[in-house]
Amino acid sequence: MTILIRGGTVVNADRVFRADVLCDGDKIIAVAENLAAPAGATVIDAGGQYVMPGGIDTHTHMNLPFMGTVTQDDFYTGTAAGLAGGTTTIMDFVIPAPQQNLIEAYHQWRGWAQKAAADYTFHVAITWWDDSVHRDMGTLVREHGVNSFKHFMAYKNAIMADDETLVKSFRRSLELGAIPTVHAENGELVYQLQQDLLKQGLTGPSSHPLSRPPAVEAEAANRAIAIANVLNTPVYIVHVSCAESLEAITRARAHGQRVYGEALAGHLVIDDSVYQSPDLEFAAGHVMSPPFRSKQHQTALWQGLQGGNLHTTATDHCTFCAAQKAAGKDDFTKIPNGCGGVEDRMSVVWDAGVNAGLLTPSEFVKVTSTNAAQIFNMYPRKGVIAAGADADVVVWDPEGSRTISARTQHARGGFNVFEGRTVRGIPSATVAAGKVVFQNGTLMAVEGAGRHIDRPAFKAASAR
Amino acid sequence: MTILIRGGTVVNADRVFRADVLCDGDKIIAVAENLAAPAGATVIDAGGQYVMPGGIDTHTHMNLPFMGTVTQDDFYTGTAAGLAGGTTTIMDFVIPAPQQNLIEAYHQWRGWAQKAAADYTFHVAITWWDDSVHRDMGTLVREHGVNSFKHFMAYKNAIMADDETLVKSFRRSLELGAIPTVHAENGELVYQLQQDLLKQGLTGPSSHPLSRPPAVEAEAANRAIAIANVLNTPVYIVHVSCAESLEAITRARAHGQRVYGEALAGHLVIDDSVYQSPDLEFAAGHVMSPPFRSKQHQTALWQGLQGGNLHTTATDHCTFCAAQKAAGKDDFTKIPNGCGGVEDRMSVVWDAGVNAGLLTPSEFVKVTSTNAAQIFNMYPRKGVIAAGADADVVVWDPEGSRTISARTQHARGGFNVFEGRTVRGIPSATVAAGKVVFQNGTLMAVEGAGRHIDRPAFKAASAR
Amino acid sequence: MTILIRGGTVVNADRVFRADVLCDGDKIIAVAENLAAPAGATVIDAGGQYVMPGGIDTHTHMNLPFMGTVTQDDFYTGTAAGLAGGTTTIMDFVIPAPQQNLIEAYHQWRGWAQKAAADYTFHVAITWWDDSVHRDMGTLVREHGVNSFKHFMAYKNAIMADDETLVKSFRRSLELGAIPTVHAENGELVYQLQQDLLKQGLTGPSSHPLSRPPAVEAEAANRAIAIANVLNTPVYIVHVSCAESLEAITRARAHGQRVYGEALAGHLVIDDSVYQSPDLEFAAGHVMSPPFRSKQHQTALWQGLQGGNLHTTATDHCTFCAAQKAAGKDDFTKIPNGCGGVEDRMSVVWDAGVNAGLLTPSEFVKVTSTNAAQIFNMYPRKGVIAAGADADVVVWDPEGSRTISARTQHARGGFNVFEGRTVRGIPSATVAAGKVVFQNGTLMAVEGAGRHIDRPAFKAASAR
Amino acid sequence: MTILIRGGTVVNADRVFRADVLCDGDKIIAVAENLAAPAGATVIDAGGQYVMPGGIDTHTHMNLPFMGTVTQDDFYTGTAAGLAGGTTTIMDFVIPAPQQNLIEAYHQWRGWAQKAAADYTFHVAITWWDDSVHRDMGTLVREHGVNSFKHFMAYKNAIMADDETLVKSFRRSLELGAIPTVHAENGELVYQLQQDLLKQGLTGPSSHPLSRPPAVEAEAANRAIAIANVLNTPVYIVHVSCAESLEAITRARAHGQRVYGEALAGHLVIDDSVYQSPDLEFAAGHVMSPPFRSKQHQTALWQGLQGGNLHTTATDHCTFCAAQKAAGKDDFTKIPNGCGGVEDRMSVVWDAGVNAGLLTPSEFVKVTSTNAAQIFNMYPRKGVIAAGADADVVVWDPEGSRTISARTQHARGGFNVFEGRTVRGIPSATVAAGKVVFQNGTLMAVEGAGRHIDRPAFKAASAR
Repeated sequence: MTILIRGGTVVNADRVFRADVLCDGDKIIAVAENLAAPAGATVIDAGGQYVMPGGIDTHTHMNLPFMGTVTQDDFYTGTAAGLAGGTTTIMDFVIPAPQQNLIEAYHQWRGWAQKAAADYTFHVAITWWDDSVHRDMGTLVREHGVNSFKHFMAYKNAIMADDETLVKSFRRSLELGAIPTVHAENGELVYQLQQDLLKQGLTGPSSHPLSRPPAVEAEAANRAIAIANVLNTPVYIVHVSCAESLEAITRARAHGQRVYGEALAGHLVIDDSVYQSPDLEFAAGHVMSPPFRSKQHQTALWQGLQGGNLHTTATDHCTFCAAQKAAGKDDFTKIPNGCGGVEDRMSVVWDAGVNAGLLTPSEFVKVTSTNAAQIFNMYPRKGVIAAGADADVVVWDPEGSRTISARTQHARGGFNVFEGRTVRGIPSATVAAGKVVFQNGTLMAVEGAGRHIDRPAFKAASAR
Repeated sequence: MTILIRGGTVVNADRVFRADVLCDGDKIIAVAENLAAPAGATVIDAGGQYVMPGGIDTHTHMNLPFMGTVTQDDFYTGTAAGLAGGTTTIMDFVIPAPQQNLIEAYHQWRGWAQKAAADYTFHVAITWWDDSVHRDMGTLVREHGVNSFKHFMAYKNAIMADDETLVKSFRRSLELGAIPTVHAENGELVYQLQQDLLKQGLTGPSSHPLSRPPAVEAEAANRAIAIANVLNTPVYIVHVSCAESLEAITRARAHGQRVYGEALAGHLVIDDSVYQSPDLEFAAGHVMSPPFRSKQHQTALWQGLQGGNLHTTATDHCTFCAAQKAAGKDDFTKIPNGCGGVEDRMSVVWDAGVNAGLLTPSEFVKVTSTNAAQIFNMYPRKGVIAAGADADVVVWDPEGSRTISARTQHARGGFNVFEGRTVRGIPSATVAAGKVVFQNGTLMAVEGAGRHIDRPAFKAASAR
Repeated sequence: MTILIRGGTVVNADRVFRADVLCDGDKIIAVAENLAAPAGATVIDAGGQYVMPGGIDTHTHMNLPFMGTVTQDDFYTGTAAGLAGGTTTIMDFVIPAPQQNLIEAYHQWRGWAQKAAADYTFHVAITWWDDSVHRDMGTLVREHGVNSFKHFMAYKNAIMADDETLVKSFRRSLELGAIPTVHAENGELVYQLQQDLLKQGLTGPSSHPLSRPPAVEAEAANRAIAIANVLNTPVYIVHVSCAESLEAITRARAHGQRVYGEALAGHLVIDDSVYQSPDLEFAAGHVMSPPFRSKQHQTALWQGLQGGNLHTTATDHCTFCAAQKAAGKDDFTKIPNGCGGVEDRMSVVWDAGVNAGLLTPSEFVKVTSTNAAQIFNMYPRKGVIAAGADADVVVWDPEGSRTISARTQHARGGFNVFEGRTVRGIPSATVAAGKVVFQNGTLMAVEGAGRHIDRPAFKAASAR
Repeated sequence: MTILIRGGTVVNADRVFRADVLCDGDKIIAVAENLAAPAGATVIDAGGQYVMPGGIDTHTHMNLPFMGTVTQDDFYTGTAAGLAGGTTTIMDFVIPAPQQNLIEAYHQWRGWAQKAAADYTFHVAITWWDDSVHRDMGTLVREHGVNSFKHFMAYKNAIMADDETLVKSFRRSLELGAIPTVHAENGELVYQLQQDLLKQGLTGPSSHPLSRPPAVEAEAANRAIAIANVLNTPVYIVHVSCAESLEAITRARAHGQRVYGEALAGHLVIDDSVYQSPDLEFAAGHVMSPPFRSKQHQTALWQGLQGGNLHTTATDHCTFCAAQKAAGKDDFTKIPNGCGGVEDRMSVVWDAGVNAGLLTPSEFVKVTSTNAAQIFNMYPRKGVIAAGADADVVVWDPEGSRTISARTQHARGGFNVFEGRTVRGIPSATVAAGKVVFQNGTLMAVEGAGRHIDRPAFKAASAR
């Protein structure tokens, strides 16, 4: 398939310029002004629109078995929803059960992902430790295209990694040329606060944020950063939700440490008043960890993106339906944690970021695509509009708008944390791996069209 | 015994004024100008000198069984050395072995302390956790005058408290009106770094500071502060040795949190070049944790004392002789950790602080005595020159000087980290519990004269 | 007059204790339990109440000629209002017109102050510079009991001090043993923003805060602190209103610099929504500089008081009536700047601070009295309940309450920024200079009873 | 001229890759693997070497009349020296005398620059203010390719801009789409400290750093940033030399403000011990403002470059010979301020940055070229190896080394602050505007070959 995107304004992380974009097969083959359309080419008119690298959502959980149930979106519905929103690559997580062999878990997730409609790649979680884990991390990096490992500092008595595991896994990652990432919340404090709240009879979803205050997150972020500092590894903090965590990152970066931070679209625009809703289904629908925070934290997160202390935007897309959420109706600690968003992230960040004057279009591309591609070593295959790159392109209509709703979304779960929000700035077309997969509101996602993206280990640049 | 200290300048934390000080029995009974000497009173001429509250060393280990041996100084020699230097009260530590009953350990230490020449009181360490520990903490506070509990975040596989113990003990302390204190170093990181260094064949004392870099200390300080923040307890960080830890305290205090920090006289003036000495006995003599740091950290610690972010000065007096230190000659992790200083702290802090223009005399009194008395609820019995206070008084000659040396010290151990340092500002006389125990270089300490100081639990101030 | 305050709980900055307080003449002569009432003594029953040092308001403007008019409260009505609220000393300002001789201005203010009902003392503003100013600063310190000089960094084209004046006056202050203080707002930026707003036709009081954003204040605070740092003088920042200014102070203090900060009762509890009122008289009534800020700044200021980075509380009491405020009805820059509060500060700070659990009673005393007395060298004459101190005492009923209103206040001006606020914690009696001047709601202030308090220059403490 | 750079490793800001680079005329026309050499092409063998965008020195003063004399290097010798070191573009300064017409001054400098051997462009200093300055700023932006204006906050009684000028010029810059830049030192404090030192008889060059301590620089940086914040303009701080200034930038950036910082090669590696030299000629040779700082500031500056809080590296190349420096032999304030370095910057930053493991090669390119091109709107004409960019290329031999010396340098002045430093990492060839101008140690610079680079005003990115 040959596609010519004509008349648009290309936005890359480094600059904005007028150019046509020619795609052939699954690659971009030319970016220049006034390109002629080859015979048989599909022409997309991008006049008055931006042409940007397809979005990369660095944090999703499709088909996830979690807290005794499985998420609503599988790899097909989840990636298809992403394509409808301009996201052409997701980074999902292999999460081995404690004692489960890593390679086995990896293959389990790879199997589930066969049906994906868009490209995907996996962070692998280190949820326990022994010599086989040490060995299998090597196998994953060398043979399976994995270059990032995830560590949960929360979820005591389940998948929480203690300091010993963190230290050993961070060091192993460094040795392998992989980057460690962390979910930063102090699991012990969360557990104690949960028990306290339950003892006091405070069993509803409004207790959820009380059990995970900012200090709990900031402590863990600071600890992960300290471990990385001592071991001299880079580190990536997933879903930074509060000013205090961001400050830990900012401090470290100001001292030259290579720390990266991810913000979720939800944390950028939704505040913790949702947990006070008398509609418990609504409140439970917003239960995720870290929880939504008060408005001042949103300001801080945007400043983090502006100042270069946060690098990526993601969603932690992890959809549960009302019936699943109801498992925690008498005990908020049993509400499956998770919200959606893979379909909405690009528009939400554009509307609240670019339209609000907080981000330039180039900065938008950085935080929705380029930085992710660079931090996780998919660049310049992903993250840039340039000849040779994958033909993952979003044609962005800055004047188009839509009102987000669970009723009209492609994702499953029947709930949307952005419900009712009207965003200006939407994809008019999405091209993924050289195919038009979404255009003018019509989704043409193909189950199984997505590919696993191998991510090579990091190596020092050398001239020889 | 009646003592009149005549003609001096009284220095309290709040002001400096000319007054005579009259002591009778073990109390100060009058502070005023031109007091007449009662019949039979011993008169001390304090003309041209300062009259200050006796020093409180908040951190000593006399008679400590540690790393397979016992410190050189027992409660008699240690407290006597303190008196020679103007310190009239020590705060020592009961350190139960894991699984040892707290009350039993407490009585063990009380027994050892019978021979003390000066007043003493105990922090009790929480080195393990079960219901009996919870119960015994209550007994100690209610019946034994204990209002502070210590937690070691270092010393993995020995007395290290994990997050669960920290959380439970901090909460219990709050409930009881006691203050938690921590030795802040991440024990897991220290352990890993030690193993690495040993594997590399770096077995000498110069590896000691490499195994405990500032980031290791700052991480733990930050974690303890976060736990205290979440549980809403005050917290006290012992032996803050580096800028990074201090910053964690400073940040918390700037947000209104009640965090207190202690600096050691050694950390204030000695730098880490000592570990590079080719004289391994000398280097090993300086092995303590946290280790001495580079000079910039000294600057930071002084600024902490000036700005009110550090509150007390102590020594971690814990003396081992060369033969004991030699246990680690082939493995630095086996060198018994500890240095002396109880005899030298007051002069070192005066000379490097007041003479250098960094502290005023009132600030000196705050950080050597008054703040300790207030934080640990011994005030105004201790920490102030006022009628009704204990007659613990040091007459301070700002022009007197001495050169510190192991050859002339009263403390045991045969080593002094301040060796060769000439300090200007020394006690000309020390009065403890109403007795002249040191005068003009002569020590008159009496074994067993010291008393245990009960420290009541903290209670909210109420008018009713 | 002899007064025995019996049965109360004395609150000093360093501790809380049960004691009776005996006053004779204008001094406290005894503080002890179970004092017998001398014959003829007036006995005040303080049972169930706190007995605290009289408040010191570090920042008032009585009888001030400003912006073409004169404040409503003169030294009698202003100080009398203070007594009704538990404030027994005010620190007012001599503000020479540019080119006015300092000594002449000083005498002018001393003349106006003759009628004061409570003790008073003066900061003297340095609003211009030449050799006579240099000389007269010396005269004021040596002969007139002045030890603090004020500098306005705002009010361009009027009393603004430029950097040259700041540098010269700070240095002169240091030489004399006086402390420089600053009103920190960048006058140039304020002026430009005012002009912009007026040009845009935004002439109402809602433009006032827009013309003085936090960055304008923080810049000036930082600049004053930098000048003090370079010249090695202490510095005191008046009416710190925002997080950004406080951060400048906190940073400097963390590096050991001697910087002090003052918070106004109004800034602690009132937010900037007042300027949005459609009632322009109400909005104009709140016009003062710096303006009220958004709520997050209140949180910051309280944290500053808790953490010891702010030291005093004041009011900037400066009352104009509605007719005066109306001078700016077509141009917000012409609204006379100023609000009241001298009568309300103690109760407002107690209610929002102590009752809310933010401050202990001892900390309340520190920030309403003791710190002021120490920073401005009136201690221990003022700022403490102790034998020998001035008999300035407030008997504080923690359960008493009142609803603040312009209709019931003693101060003039017909307006109160705390209108309608019910505070719990009020004086049941105020003793000033040994006289009962307020009791059970009845004010017995006597015109002319107040004395000028000479404040000697600061000198280094010496034992000789 | 056609040039093929073959076999090298291209380093751009975003990535490192193997490619040949083909230049034709003054442009790069192809970047790809295995390019064939066109007939007649000059082939440069870059095997085992890096191929990078030519350096941009953002801060030079060629032919500068300053302090009564003129710098040794004119635009020919200065730019030629730059080419020898791999720098292909300089950003110099037009500095109108107070009251001098801006356009006239601009043409004066353009005239001097005719002889330049490499491309150049000008920041224009705003040293005074009236309506003509306002008008001429517009002319310079619209007609003369100027998009940056410089403000000296130092040099009282000469070219210092006061707050009024800063505010007016920053606002005008914003309106025009130009970026304001500042030399941040508080001129008033410098002046006072200079007078003090001279009065004390401290007239030698060792007084120079004492007259310009870090607090003086940090104050001004903070003030410029505050003004930019209030007016909502970006701002660029030239020659950030100390941790305190950097902190001001870092704070602002952490709050999302668009602040950029420049570090000088000299400040990155030279410390203030040079001023203590008994060789006064040597000491005077190092006199520049801000002065060299103690070593801890170097650490901070490198961390600033690593963490993205500093963006560019420059030299402030401004060469005076010993005879000129001798003008200040009896008064350090009369020593012409300035040092060289345009020839050495690239190698010094590579050696101390990349070789030391502080910067990656891509980060090196960012801070020596790409960021400058982007901040000052010359990108992608400058700052990247890509088809369409100017053929300004440096072929970098990471194993080549040289020892810097005034005896062997191409720059004039007879002095080099890097004297004796051996650097590993040097240009083996420099291509400028499509010509080989330096190869294997031989300089082939051509007088007059340099072009003025017009820099268009900044505009918001728009799709329409």
